[in-house]
Amino acid sequence: MTDAADLTARLIRCPSVTPEEGGALVLLAEMLGKAGFDVHRVDRNGTPNLFARWGAKGVRTFGFNGHTDVVPPGDLGSWSHPPFGGHVEDGIIWGRGATDMKSGVAAFTAAAIDFVTLTPPDGAVILTITGDEEGASKDGTPALLDWMTEQGERMDVCVVGEPSNPDQMGEMMKIGRRGSVTFHITATGIQGHAAYPHRANNPLHALTRYLNELIAAPLDQGTDHFDPTGLQITTIDCGNPASNVIPETATAVVNIRFNDLHSGASLIHDLTARADKLSAETGVALKIAADISGEAFLTEPGPFVDLVRDVVTAECGRQPVLSTSGGTSDARYIKDHCPVVEFGLVGHFMHQVDERVPENQVRQLKDIYQRILERYFA
Amino acid sequence: MTDAADLTARLIRCPSVTPEEGGALVLLAEMLGKAGFDVHRVDRNGTPNLFARWGAKGVRTFGFNGHTDVVPPGDLGSWSHPPFGGHVEDGIIWGRGATDMKSGVAAFTAAAIDFVTLTPPDGAVILTITGDEEGASKDGTPALLDWMTEQGERMDVCVVGEPSNPDQMGEMMKIGRRGSVTFHITATGIQGHAAYPHRANNPLHALTRYLNELIAAPLDQGTDHFDPTGLQITTIDCGNPASNVIPETATAVVNIRFNDLHSGASLIHDLTARADKLSAETGVALKIAADISGEAFLTEPGPFVDLVRDVVTAECGRQPVLSTSGGTSDARYIKDHCPVVEFGLVGHFMHQVDERVPENQVRQLKDIYQRILERYFA
Ligand SMILES: [Zn+2]
Ligand SMILES: [Zn+2]
Repeated sequence: MTDAADLTARLIRCPSVTPEEGGALVLLAEMLGKAGFDVHRVDRNGTPNLFARWGAKGVRTFGFNGHTDVVPPGDLGSWSHPPFGGHVEDGIIWGRGATDMKSGVAAFTAAAIDFVTLTPPDGAVILTITGDEEGASKDGTPALLDWMTEQGERMDVCVVGEPSNPDQMGEMMKIGRRGSVTFHITATGIQGHAAYPHRANNPLHALTRYLNELIAAPLDQGTDHFDPTGLQITTIDCGNPASNVIPETATAVVNIRFNDLHSGASLIHDLTARADKLSAETGVALKIAADISGEAFLTEPGPFVDLVRDVVTAECGRQPVLSTSGGTSDARYIKDHCPVVEFGLVGHFMHQVDERVPENQVRQLKDIYQRILERYFA
Repeated sequence: MTDAADLTARLIRCPSVTPEEGGALVLLAEMLGKAGFDVHRVDRNGTPNLFARWGAKGVRTFGFNGHTDVVPPGDLGSWSHPPFGGHVEDGIIWGRGATDMKSGVAAFTAAAIDFVTLTPPDGAVILTITGDEEGASKDGTPALLDWMTEQGERMDVCVVGEPSNPDQMGEMMKIGRRGSVTFHITATGIQGHAAYPHRANNPLHALTRYLNELIAAPLDQGTDHFDPTGLQITTIDCGNPASNVIPETATAVVNIRFNDLHSGASLIHDLTARADKLSAETGVALKIAADISGEAFLTEPGPFVDLVRDVVTAECGRQPVLSTSGGTSDARYIKDHCPVVEFGLVGHFMHQVDERVPENQVRQLKDIYQRILERYFA
């Protein structure tokens, strides 16, 4: 039996702050190789990634995805235990990555090894583990998926082991995510004296009207599986120090988390059209530059979602909500490869000082993953 | 006969960028003293000011007000002639202060000297000339007025010689000014992640709503002698670099130029009440700090205004509009002392590179001032 709690502590001792590998993928590659997995490092542009398959290529395949990189520890003096010490005390594992998500990687790695060792399936198990999910992530999971396509490797379904529960194990699994698009708005008017506004054209007035229009009404009311689309102004800047001067330019940034009623492109079209209309009306040029971080996606409820939900319900004693809430994750890339759901630990302490996790929670997660594998191949 | 054009050039050669006296007041004091004026330097806190009276204290008194300080020349390389050279070429006087307002000071000084010399009146003429109108101005004209009150000196009426004409001599005189009040608004909400807005409270949304409400409708439609009150947002700042983070605070500055339907206090009351209402509604604290630069005032049309208007009409061949437009001037202080109007040159080139004025315009202004004195004491 492979102890997922012990493996979590050992992974925490690998200082793998993005983009450092820190020994984490090396450790996992060695364990998986010994257990009979076919292991490949799939690094791209210096980003370390690990691919591991047990069983033959091309047969019925269950996949897991996760990351071993972690965010920086912040102020070391604020930690009760060293962030890369992997200390265990009174059943609690302390350190950076204890919840996000060396524990999740340890749980599915231990589950996969024990599953193929104890009950070798008629099929294959693939683990895709990246060393860059917390950073730009463009050469992380996307590199693994690109490489798999080239190699004819394929997961039929995939579970991402990110923390998915708000407070208690079994509360929530994620079957999709809202998309995210960020707009950089530049308003250019005509500078002038505040006492002679007819000789100027105040970009802040047009920008205020524009932003107020965006926040005045919700973009939608949500859908069956999605919260309403949310829009947040994250900054407005002008930097004009003179209160008697109308400035020439001002900028704003707006972030939209959107559901399946929209796409990045439809929102860019909508916000640009509104800007063009107001530009024509006011004479202030409102220019939009947009950046789509991810599209909204949904893994429709069905046999795969039911399987995961049923196992979680049985193991945790509560039926998880099928959610699409939260920020982006690498599931946004995997959804183009195969059906994907996310289930992992309780997300408390993610990215915080004194990140920690109970040993028994990690072991419970391992049991859940192993039971999912058993049911999938039954 | 005193040549106002020549005096303008000589004053330009005094490098009197605020707060430097630059020799300008010394030059005027000497000329006025020689012409029989009783001359006093009324400096306060290092700010140079000049008081000059011809005639006895306490009799019927006509006053002029102006300033010899100038704004900095900016990029010296952009000037066709040195800004403090006082060059005269083809009837044009070049240099900083050519329009704002060494020319105006030269015109009323020359007019006053020639008037009292050629046609000594049964009354007094007072000149109040400050070296700080372009700066904080608190120790400029206010210091002169405070000193005059202490000394029992008084102007019965006053003409301020600031440029008052938009394009042509005689187009416009000013019989009042709008007030000016500046609001510094700080919005404080709750920081959070853009994907979890229910755990945050975006100060930019409350601030945008607040500002949009302020610009949505005009504050009034203007009055008999005043333009509508104008409101300008002069800056909005937040400085949040992370597009996935809802910021905690944001600030804005709003400047209001108001007519006689409002006072600084009434506007502060109004904008604070609106902020309090929106704070209660949104949970975002909107705090207001306000600074009143000047209250609106009007010198009601009557004999004094008619006198100035009639002289200008006769000398320029057009009847000047009675205006209250534009930025603040020292008339905002004088209005508490006596009826005050503003008439001077054409305001082109004020505060700009290559500031310049035609010699004959300065001489025309001197003639107008002298004729006003003659009519006043007739
Ligand atoms: Zn993570
Ligand atoms: Zn001036």
